[in-house]
Amino acid sequence: MSETQTYTVTGMTCEHCVASVTEEVSEIPGVDSVEVVLETGSVTVTSSRPLEDTAVRTAVEEAGYRLA
Amino acid sequence: MSETQTYTVTGMTCEHCVASVTEEVSEIPGVDSVEVVLETGSVTVTSSRPLEDTAVRTAVEEAGYRLA
Repeated sequence: MSETQTYTVTGMTCEHCVASVTEEVSEIPGVDSVEVVLETGSVTVTSSRPLEDTAVRTAVEEAGYRLA
Repeated sequence: MSETQTYTVTGMTCEHCVASVTEEVSEIPGVDSVEVVLETGSVTVTSSRPLEDTAVRTAVEEAGYRLA
């Protein structure tokens, strides 16, 4: 079973930003995949168990960005 | 003796872009320092000998950007 949740991240301007967010969010335990769309800021996370929003928020902030 | 030359690079949007350009230009033989200003796109290169503009252009393009 997997959970999919979509977040919006502000401040990403280029593919390096996308890579940073993808890397940090991917490191959250239980995350299976992360898909980021630069143009919209959407970050879709698939995980094997429900994620705490604070874990996602912290990962995004560690990458240097913010959840909308 | 050192030479200093300033170029303008287009397309940099964030500090990751600055880091990429700095890294690639720094690898040109003879380059001692690279200073990039994101807001203006200026890239100031100090080198122990004159640089070929094509070497700088190639480095900038390898980083994914363009000389103006």
